[in-house]
Amino acid sequence: MQRQKICIIGSGNWGSAIAKIIGFNAEAHPELFETDVPMWVFEEQVNGHKLTEIINTEHENVKYLKGIKLPQRVIAIPDVVEAAKDADILVFVLPHQFVRGICDKLKGKLKTSAVAVTLIKGFEIAEGGGILLISNVIRQSLNIPCAALMGANIANEVANEHYCEATIGCQDKQLGQKLKSVFQTKYFRIVCVQDETVVEVCGALKNVVATAAGFTDGLGYGDNTKAAVIRLGLMEMIKFSLVFYPGSKLETFFESCGVADLITTCYGGRNRRVAEAFVKTGKPIGQLEQEMLQGQKLQGPPTAAEVNSMLKTKNMENKFPLFTAVHKICQGTITATEMIECLRNHPEHN
Amino acid sequence: MQRQKICIIGSGNWGSAIAKIIGFNAEAHPELFETDVPMWVFEEQVNGHKLTEIINTEHENVKYLKGIKLPQRVIAIPDVVEAAKDADILVFVLPHQFVRGICDKLKGKLKTSAVAVTLIKGFEIAEGGGILLISNVIRQSLNIPCAALMGANIANEVANEHYCEATIGCQDKQLGQKLKSVFQTKYFRIVCVQDETVVEVCGALKNVVATAAGFTDGLGYGDNTKAAVIRLGLMEMIKFSLVFYPGSKLETFFESCGVADLITTCYGGRNRRVAEAFVKTGKPIGQLEQEMLQGQKLQGPPTAAEVNSMLKTKNMENKFPLFTAVHKICQGTITATEMIECLRNHPEHN
Repeated sequence: MQRQKICIIGSGNWGSAIAKIIGFNAEAHPELFETDVPMWVFEEQVNGHKLTEIINTEHENVKYLKGIKLPQRVIAIPDVVEAAKDADILVFVLPHQFVRGICDKLKGKLKTSAVAVTLIKGFEIAEGGGILLISNVIRQSLNIPCAALMGANIANEVANEHYCEATIGCQDKQLGQKLKSVFQTKYFRIVCVQDETVVEVCGALKNVVATAAGFTDGLGYGDNTKAAVIRLGLMEMIKFSLVFYPGSKLETFFESCGVADLITTCYGGRNRRVAEAFVKTGKPIGQLEQEMLQGQKLQGPPTAAEVNSMLKTKNMENKFPLFTAVHKICQGTITATEMIECLRNHPEHN
Repeated sequence: MQRQKICIIGSGNWGSAIAKIIGFNAEAHPELFETDVPMWVFEEQVNGHKLTEIINTEHENVKYLKGIKLPQRVIAIPDVVEAAKDADILVFVLPHQFVRGICDKLKGKLKTSAVAVTLIKGFEIAEGGGILLISNVIRQSLNIPCAALMGANIANEVANEHYCEATIGCQDKQLGQKLKSVFQTKYFRIVCVQDETVVEVCGALKNVVATAAGFTDGLGYGDNTKAAVIRLGLMEMIKFSLVFYPGSKLETFFESCGVADLITTCYGGRNRRVAEAFVKTGKPIGQLEQEMLQGQKLQGPPTAAEVNSMLKTKNMENKFPLFTAVHKICQGTITATEMIECLRNHPEHN
């Protein structure tokens, strides 16, 4: 087999952590991979220098993953077409609102045999309503296969080589194994499943559940109530997958992308944290994003809105009382206190 | 249908919390239940008075559930045979080491049509090795059916009427619905499943996983590693059920008895807490039980030992690296640090 060239598209906190892993594996397996790993970096000035230059000389993303050395053969490139040139494996790890623009630039510029894997959590809103998976945006724009890698992976912990797991969802079993060899290290353990849609759907929906968990914390409830909220959220994630993505498998929710990532996000995670503050302070979410996240946007509330638009088209809001309540609370239509009332007669209890 | 007489056997922290619920339901549904609910209380002196007298006059279990009023028709009785006389539904909620002795006393003294439900978490060691479910001890001793009720239910939170869920496992669907009417309230939401064995097995095995989660906390790992440990523990719970209790269903692990109780126990819970201290202080578990639990015994370490005896008989220790590591750490054979090494090549990653 020819050595595979890997390109990383994105270089934020998670992108840089995964670049450390990929660069390490590329160096460790020259029989499988090209040692040079181009990484597309959105160019910006940091302390009067270009970020790409800093990365290529200091081998550290001083802005998004401070204190972690990147492998020397991870090469920062500000032009995405140049970065992706001749790549066999494209790793998409950038904020989801930039995916379509990047794909537009890459159209017709890639190897026809290239494959993609998305590490991006979230949906895109489809024209005419409903939601579109990021992998679908990539597949449709670039006409290449696209797998998904998700899991309980807080970037800084991964960068510090703390033991954790992740799930690769890839319909094509052989491609899944190839991607596993790109990502697996001694401390980053990969399970491959073929149910790629659920892997990706979990990564988006968990933020809605974490928002609900944060409301529960803000209301001062204890561990019982929070566990019930997380479980009912998980049941709605499962039902949502079964309704909108027929063929979804129950087993996939036991993978790292499912229950493990959900737990991490509902206990740590900024959606939980801001949702708690939302209840405690009464401030609007936009204001809390400014105050607590330096203006970065949460994913829970917009995902809840996207999910709600799907549920409305099917007239199924009442079958998903938790998802629906989170959306209404974020919209200010109901108060957080009312969320628990919405769960007293959850369809799961019938 | 004749009005059913409910008897509660046990009156500790959880027994008293559940007595509040049962007493309330018995009063609210005189068409279904006898209003008087006898509760067997292990007699002891509290401030110079008998505990039964205090409960029957003050309607509060001042020793085990302070500050919570019990319904007046919950009647404390120190003689278990008298308490269970003419009972149609027996609710077992006492420390598991006392079950066999209590059953011996009740043998031949019960209505032949009586049914039981166990709220007891833990196994009994079978003669000749291996483990025995508490429901089996009850079934075999008393020759009556026995369901199980388990869930993410910290007693004090339930007693304070915080919203939560529980699972009733009962092979007989109709009996399950009858038991649901005994327990369900506005704040205590019940789901019935027929897979009664898994409901009960989850209640015991979760303590082993919580011990592992506590070790992880003690080692200073973050959310990723803990989520991985909890997930791998869950996968071993599932595999254990499938191997030793064929016919176990995957869906049951999504119920409150499964994933929800596991989360609560791995974040709160005393097994987690003592296991963390075990790593941080280096003190033996017995000493920590004295210091942190006033001499009360943890369930995680003995359950890990019981599970290990089952695994050894089948030569399957290496298929359950987490369960096995927890046992070895509790035995002092390996250190907690080695647990993570045991998980690097978990069979789930193949």
